[in-house]
Amino acid sequence: MRIILIGLGNVGKNFVKLLLNRQKDLMDNFGLSPRIVAVVDSKGASRNPRGLDFNGILKIKEEMGSVGKDPLFGEENIIALDIIREVEAEVVIEASSTELVTGEPAMSHIENSIKMGKHVISTNKGPLALALPALIELAEYNQVMLRFSGTVGGGTPILDFGRKCLTTEKIVSLKGILNGTTNYILSKMDFEGTSFEEALKFAQNLGYAEAEPSTDIDGIDTACKLVILANWVLKRRVTLKDVKITGIRQITRKDLREANNKKGTIKLIGSISENIKVEPLTVLRSDPMCVNGTLNAVTFSSLTSGDQTIIGRGAGGMETASSILRDLINIRNNISGRERF
Amino acid sequence: MRIILIGLGNVGKNFVKLLLNRQKDLMDNFGLSPRIVAVVDSKGASRNPRGLDFNGILKIKEEMGSVGKDPLFGEENIIALDIIREVEAEVVIEASSTELVTGEPAMSHIENSIKMGKHVISTNKGPLALALPALIELAEYNQVMLRFSGTVGGGTPILDFGRKCLTTEKIVSLKGILNGTTNYILSKMDFEGTSFEEALKFAQNLGYAEAEPSTDIDGIDTACKLVILANWVLKRRVTLKDVKITGIRQITRKDLREANNKKGTIKLIGSISENIKVEPLTVLRSDPMCVNGTLNAVTFSSLTSGDQTIIGRGAGGMETASSILRDLINIRNNISGRERF
Repeated sequence: MRIILIGLGNVGKNFVKLLLNRQKDLMDNFGLSPRIVAVVDSKGASRNPRGLDFNGILKIKEEMGSVGKDPLFGEENIIALDIIREVEAEVVIEASSTELVTGEPAMSHIENSIKMGKHVISTNKGPLALALPALIELAEYNQVMLRFSGTVGGGTPILDFGRKCLTTEKIVSLKGILNGTTNYILSKMDFEGTSFEEALKFAQNLGYAEAEPSTDIDGIDTACKLVILANWVLKRRVTLKDVKITGIRQITRKDLREANNKKGTIKLIGSISENIKVEPLTVLRSDPMCVNGTLNAVTFSSLTSGDQTIIGRGAGGMETASSILRDLINIRNNISGRERF
Repeated sequence: MRIILIGLGNVGKNFVKLLLNRQKDLMDNFGLSPRIVAVVDSKGASRNPRGLDFNGILKIKEEMGSVGKDPLFGEENIIALDIIREVEAEVVIEASSTELVTGEPAMSHIENSIKMGKHVISTNKGPLALALPALIELAEYNQVMLRFSGTVGGGTPILDFGRKCLTTEKIVSLKGILNGTTNYILSKMDFEGTSFEEALKFAQNLGYAEAEPSTDIDGIDTACKLVILANWVLKRRVTLKDVKITGIRQITRKDLREANNKKGTIKLIGSISENIKVEPLTVLRSDPMCVNGTLNAVTFSSLTSGDQTIIGRGAGGMETASSILRDLINIRNNISGRERF
């Protein structure tokens, strides 16, 4: 299976490492022999129709800063769109960083890949949050698969759970903690009585929050994940503008003390029922969804089998990389009509 | 799809109700048109190759005590094995009550169905706990599917989650609370300071525990579920005799107080790592698996995506019935080679 990998940040690098470590296992247990025929970072690209050496990719990136500097296969200043147009491959992995105004350049990467008949795996939430209904339609029209397991829950298969395990259920609603950064901040405020500003600073020092933390703390990241869940699991064709969003900037120690008095605590909850909303809410401590630290949790409510909650780490380079592998094997199995169990 | 339904207790009756309520939905959304061509209870059977009326089955069972008394299609004193041999059908649903010494008569129902080329859905843990490796082999040899979603977690798709969502992960271990009755008893002792005997009596009065509660409180039910998880998710060919079992009869209020002092509580934990064990253990309250009441929870630990916990109601007639429907649609999709997503 020939792969074009776009983006060599934390997720991209871990994906290459994963292929390196599991080469034999993937062949033996899944009959999968992945070849990276091109890899693109922000400064250039490297390509080889026979497949680039996994170790070589990692080494050149680390030592020279860009795969474009690969003396044998590298090209500096070439952009991903050219690679997508010129290189033959079955799958394009879009793992570049998220942008939420236009979704670019990832939006064009995904659209062009689909139009060229290439399957797409995206760990980039931007284009999906802004235009998932259109992208799903485009993929269906071009008869390719678009997968994005890693965008919700990182390595925790929340999307797969909703779609594969609850397939015969009538899911009436869902709600959850979908952002680890805000969960860390609120947990810290709750357990240690710190203020919002102090907790945010802690999160930034630990690398959980960005220097510009707005996407997380203003609830936008959670909203993006709700859009993806709504489209994928509930088949509701919505985008980011359909979500009513309130973040956690206004939460005070007093709010948390009051929640505490009611045997609860405050969490940033994303929910889909009649409306799609992100807002800080008091959650009872006895609720299985009430997890702390950077954990994520989603509760699906279905008509006949009640509430079902799935909990796991919601981010992490290796975790998200493992979700790409899951999507890759899913695509391969669908292509080959292989029974999956 | 022609179905033989064996057992018309809580699960069997709810399954018929589910078909009744979702007839149109199943046809529209899944292309599934299930017909019950025979139904068997402990006193007789009723059969009609054109499909029995769902309402009629429920009415006759309620009003006359046995479907064998159906004036048009009933036969008294006929046993399930005869029906399995004589009636043409694609799927046999084994929903009779569990017996854990020989697994009979369900064991023979399953074996004979498989040998006759009929797919089997079992909500009965007995035969599976005693002989799952042999039954899986028999099903493979006869090229039929054997499914049993409802045996672990009731309506919560724990088996599906492990097998479908974590398919590309290397699961290194799992542990969980797999029995709602013991979880209720231990939660009651923990929250209200009642003794084991008192809490057991409460559970019996509420119908959570049997008059003869040994299967639950001595950990045997949990052990059966571990056997099924080990075979299905981890492909370890084990049976009930391979599980080391300790129940909760010896747990005292003092034990719970001590656990409390360590910010934990005591739960009956089933675990699979190198060994397969059931034993009461102190679990930290901050552990996502630490759920109360009759809830079930399982944590899968995988190599690259960390710990993932799934939580839901572990029993209930309608919940387990919905798991039969899940298996039925899975079998139909596998037969027709339909893409599942």
